[in-house]
This record gives sequence, structure tokens and C-alpha cells, in this order.
Amino acid sequence: MWCPSLNRKVYVLRIGHRPVRDHRVTTHVGLVARAFGADGIFLERHVEESIIKSLEKVVETWGGSFEIVKTANPRHTVTEWKRNGGIVVHLTMYGENISDELLNLILSQNKDILVVVGGEKVPSWLYYESDYNIAIGNQPHSEVAALAIFLDRLFKGKELTREFHNAKLVVIPQKRGKKVVKKE
Amino acid sequence: MWCPSLNRKVYVLRIGHRPVRDHRVTTHVGLVARAFGADGIFLERHVEESIIKSLEKVVETWGGSFEIVKTANPRHTVTEWKRNGGIVVHLTMYGENISDELLNLILSQNKDILVVVGGEKVPSWLYYESDYNIAIGNQPHSEVAALAIFLDRLFKGKELTREFHNAKLVVIPQKRGKKVVKKE
Repeated sequence: MWCPSLNRKVYVLRIGHRPVRDHRVTTHVGLVARAFGADGIFLERHVEESIIKSLEKVVETWGGSFEIVKTANPRHTVTEWKRNGGIVVHLTMYGENISDELLNLILSQNKDILVVVGGEKVPSWLYYESDYNIAIGNQPHSEVAALAIFLDRLFKGKELTREFHNAKLVVIPQKRGKKVVKKE
Repeated sequence: MWCPSLNRKVYVLRIGHRPVRDHRVTTHVGLVARAFGADGIFLERHVEESIIKSLEKVVETWGGSFEIVKTANPRHTVTEWKRNGGIVVHLTMYGENISDELLNLILSQNKDILVVVGGEKVPSWLYYESDYNIAIGNQPHSEVAALAIFLDRLFKGKELTREFHNAKLVVIPQKRGKKVVKKE
């Protein structure tokens, strides 16, 4: 398991997926979870197989270990996470705005972290069963953006220069155009 | 015009929108542009009216001034932006990874900034007509996340506590649950 500055597991739970309509957004949530350093993601049972397959293909091609877990009961996933000693952070525009104090409070506990992101509507139990309801700004925007900013703050930007082991393809950064090399 | 730390215009150009399939993602790009401090967005002519309407409704409800402009020719938008003295930053996983040096280089020029975000495929002219091709990490993830991180770095996190003038609704941040008040 890789963590740039943390010695703990970080997973994402994506809640409230609407088939078809949220196909791309849920895919983006999964891609961001992986690219920004989470160890895995929980997806609801009704999430399309094509989303799982596309995430698996990215892991296979671009490397790293990233677990994709289907859950039949997101509430159970939350309570189990807490029962196992982890903390649950729900990202919502209605929560307390993210701050260094809040981040330090979370980091100082040295526990595994489950980051929960929903869509436009989330069940009300989530506000009460989460340890923290954190806003990435109190404006409506995007669970994809909220997740990216939260993980970026948690990992202090170091996630962006992480190397993913077992990658088949690696980008060689360019000022112009694209350069991708195959790794043996 | 509001800018938390910059005395310049920042606009976003969303390129490569695929009708229906990208409906939610393009909406999220627009919402993130607004919530993270951009002054406006250029959308391609074929972007659905329902996306424009939903962005306009957010501006009307949650405040701020955010311009939504349709463009028939994104390449022309890019060349016009440069002709008017602005700089163009294309966010792409193939570019140079974002760094303090790159940000300082951009900020030190004190010019208006056009941030271009595409989808999976973007036209090759974009790599050559942009002043900077910048990666938010060299991994595949999301134009929504890339835009959020870039604007967050540009505005140094201050965009998240911005007040939006003329808001009809304002969130009062809560540890649990939701509190939204109407403003007169």
C-alpha cells in the first residue's frame, strides 16, 4: 500500500449513483480516487459493469494497486468502517468548510479514512453517521472536484508526483504534444 | 469582477463536449469554474441548452457574476484570447506537471488567463496554440478535478471562502445536517 505521507488506508465511498445519468461522473470519481492516492473505492451494487471495467482497465494500464469493491448496503459500509476503528468524512457543500485545523484534527487521529461523496441528494443518515461533514467551499459544484481537493489537501499535493508500480504505460511530460512509453 | 488574489480575468474553455454522454460532466465543469473563482466559461455551440439553463439557475440562486458564452469556433476563441494579450493554459495529463515554478511563471505575467479543459480526446492544435500544457498529475482522471486543482492553486485556496454577491440562498456551514438561509 502506498501513501505519500500517511500510514493508513484511504478509501472512497460513492453514494447515490443514478444509472446512465451519472455514468461519466461516477467513472470520474473512481479515476480521481485512484489518481489522487486513495487505496480503493466502494461502489453501490447498481453501478454499471461498464464503469467497473473501465476503472479496472485504467489500473491495469496505468498501474498501482486500487481496489474496487461493490457494496449492497452503503450504510453498513459506513458503520463497519467505524467499527473497525476508521473515521468517516462526508464531503458536502452544507458542512464545515475545509481548513488546516480540520485537516490536522483528522490527521492527528492516525486512523483509516473513508471519504464519502454523494450526488445532488444524499440520505440524511449520512450527515449523522459521518464523523465529519466537510465542505469544499459552501457552493454547489461537483463531487469529483470535492474529492480531488480533499485528497490533494490530505496528501499535501504529493499525490500528483506519485509513481504507480506495475504500469504498462507511463506519460513522459511534454511542453507540447503527447509522449507515452511502454514499460516492460 | 472578483479575484481573490489576482487582478485579471480568468475564463474557462470547455472543449470536446459530447452531447448526452457528457451532460453531467460539462455541467460539473461549469459549476466548478464558477465555484472556484473563474469569471466565466466558453462552451461549444452544440452544448445542450439544459446545461446552460442549469448553470444560469445556479448563478441566479447562489450569486456572483459568472458569464456563460457560446462559441462556434473554440480555436478562434483561443487565438482571439491571445491576440487580446491573454495567456492560454491547457490542462492535460500529457503536459508538464503543475509546480510552484510554473504557477509563478504564469502569475508573474499578470495577464488574463484562459484555462482550456477537454475530454478524452482533444484536437492536436490545442497542444501547440496553448502557451502552457499543464498536467494535474500525469495520470488519467477528470477534467473536472483538473480544473478544480488548477484554480485552487491559482487562487491559493482563497476561492473556497469567497462570498458571492447577490445570492438568494446562502449555506450556513453545519457539523451535522443542512442549513440554508434566504437572503433578501
